[in-house]
Amino acid sequence: MKILIVGGAGMIGRKLAERLAKDGSLGGKPITGVVLHDVVEARACQDCPFPISAEVGDLSQPGEAARLAAGRPDVIFHLAAIVSGEAELEFDKGYGINLDGTRLLLEAVRQAGNRPRLVFTSSIAVFGAPFPDAIGDEFFTTPLTSYGTQKAICELLLADYTRKGFLDGIGIRLPTVCVRPGAPNKAASGFFSNIIREPLAGQEAVLPVSEDVRHWHASPRAATGFLIHAAAIDGEKVGPRRNLTMPGQSVTVGEQIAGLRKVAGDKVAARIRREPDQTIMRIVAGWPRNFDASRAITLGFKADPSFEAIVRSHIDDELDGRIA
Amino acid sequence: MKILIVGGAGMIGRKLAERLAKDGSLGGKPITGVVLHDVVEARACQDCPFPISAEVGDLSQPGEAARLAAGRPDVIFHLAAIVSGEAELEFDKGYGINLDGTRLLLEAVRQAGNRPRLVFTSSIAVFGAPFPDAIGDEFFTTPLTSYGTQKAICELLLADYTRKGFLDGIGIRLPTVCVRPGAPNKAASGFFSNIIREPLAGQEAVLPVSEDVRHWHASPRAATGFLIHAAAIDGEKVGPRRNLTMPGQSVTVGEQIAGLRKVAGDKVAARIRREPDQTIMRIVAGWPRNFDASRAITLGFKADPSFEAIVRSHIDDELDGRIA
Repeated sequence: MKILIVGGAGMIGRKLAERLAKDGSLGGKPITGVVLHDVVEARACQDCPFPISAEVGDLSQPGEAARLAAGRPDVIFHLAAIVSGEAELEFDKGYGINLDGTRLLLEAVRQAGNRPRLVFTSSIAVFGAPFPDAIGDEFFTTPLTSYGTQKAICELLLADYTRKGFLDGIGIRLPTVCVRPGAPNKAASGFFSNIIREPLAGQEAVLPVSEDVRHWHASPRAATGFLIHAAAIDGEKVGPRRNLTMPGQSVTVGEQIAGLRKVAGDKVAARIRREPDQTIMRIVAGWPRNFDASRAITLGFKADPSFEAIVRSHIDDELDGRIA
Repeated sequence: MKILIVGGAGMIGRKLAERLAKDGSLGGKPITGVVLHDVVEARACQDCPFPISAEVGDLSQPGEAARLAAGRPDVIFHLAAIVSGEAELEFDKGYGINLDGTRLLLEAVRQAGNRPRLVFTSSIAVFGAPFPDAIGDEFFTTPLTSYGTQKAICELLLADYTRKGFLDGIGIRLPTVCVRPGAPNKAASGFFSNIIREPLAGQEAVLPVSEDVRHWHASPRAATGFLIHAAAIDGEKVGPRRNLTMPGQSVTVGEQIAGLRKVAGDKVAARIRREPDQTIMRIVAGWPRNFDASRAITLGFKADPSFEAIVRSHIDDELDGRIA
């Protein structure tokens, strides 16, 4: 089984490659090779049980998608995207990468003719406020960002290319990934991870919103699990509605902090400093908070069991079990 | 007020141009000129109270959209599309006209910078079975045709271009237009109109499905009214959710025939010949039957009052009041 990861240098791409290397197989079939494609060189994992290579290129450039599809991978993970903030500031660039890049990939796969499983990472940004208490599987997509619009469009293309038999697509709408490893970033959503990751590392974190703000989370471990499950799931069971909201943990910031305190103690939880930021509060108010992801659950996708489990998986996976 | 009708040679385009000529104004403002654009030359109406011209061109060709937008129309009606059956058979052509053509138009309007009202005709084909009893305003779009996919994508683009302030879009999902004037066509949906139009003209019509088949209808007169209303509606009242399911008449074929009988008598209704066609029955089974179009109704869009009224408007508008 040959695998292509487009966007292989990103955080989720790296986690996915590590998991594939650990498993050595996908859906019960041995992996014979992995290509990590991205605009920067992905770090190929050491001690891989299969050949792995990093290729550098821009999916939105002519010929690049065809070059990738020509390798006739059995499974393609398409994770590459310009992030939300950048897609909002740079309208043409966002459409160029997130929409046209994806369309070029779908078209190249169609031309290659080997009908691979293509797992596309969509986003809960396809939904726009106002929302019901829990967004169900049949709620409409009225995005309030260009990024969300591009993801919603790619979902439609993925379903149509699948329906026509050009490829075998599954779109998964990932929750916000928490705890996101690495340095704090300035994304408006950054604090959801910062308030867990930084205190666990002995650093202070700033909380810019009130503790009653609710949001929808999945650990990097759960997100990787969604991708693996989507790659091997029976397409017949999914049917023509190819895009699925992934299950997550809907918790308030207060519940996040309580989870951190329970796992790591008062001293760690005390490293969170409240510093309300009206701009961030306003942005976050328009985000989805809670979902009823029944379809994905029925299809076997597994969320983290609790927010405490999310904290523990971060400690295990990123901190070698050690709390500062 | 300058008006551009893209797809001006089609049935709805012609009806719209006639209505504009009759009204002489739109949203209370006098019309100063109308351009009818299409791949074939539109027939400009006689005795127009304003200058009207027909331009021939292909929207999907380079430069064509920019040329149209350069006229800086105040209102654009975008009705042009490859129809459903053709878009399904000719994948690339469907995407080229219905998606890329629309995107080129939106982009040209953005570049022109005058932020016109752009009324886009979408379709109930954006929805895919299975459906609830009545499809509500928040039901998701999971089209089962390439045509429906292209329309759903254009809806998303229209909303995003509007949100960014590049234009002022309103998308309207038209019911099936019934009674469609002209010769019987071979579209799978053709019989909904054929069984009314042909008997009224003294001709036999074939009914290929059972009388309990339910569908969603609007007369050409109502459809024209939707376009006119959408052109003048207050965008603030619509808000960011720019695409609206239009109200219609949900009736069974049996109720259609009863309406015809009531308006035109038994002799006319007897001109319908039952000839079941399994292929058409299967296609029609996947189509939407009924909607709850509350949002559009609240925003002032007016459906035909009854199916009988639909029959009468056909007799008035197409037959000069005479039944054969």
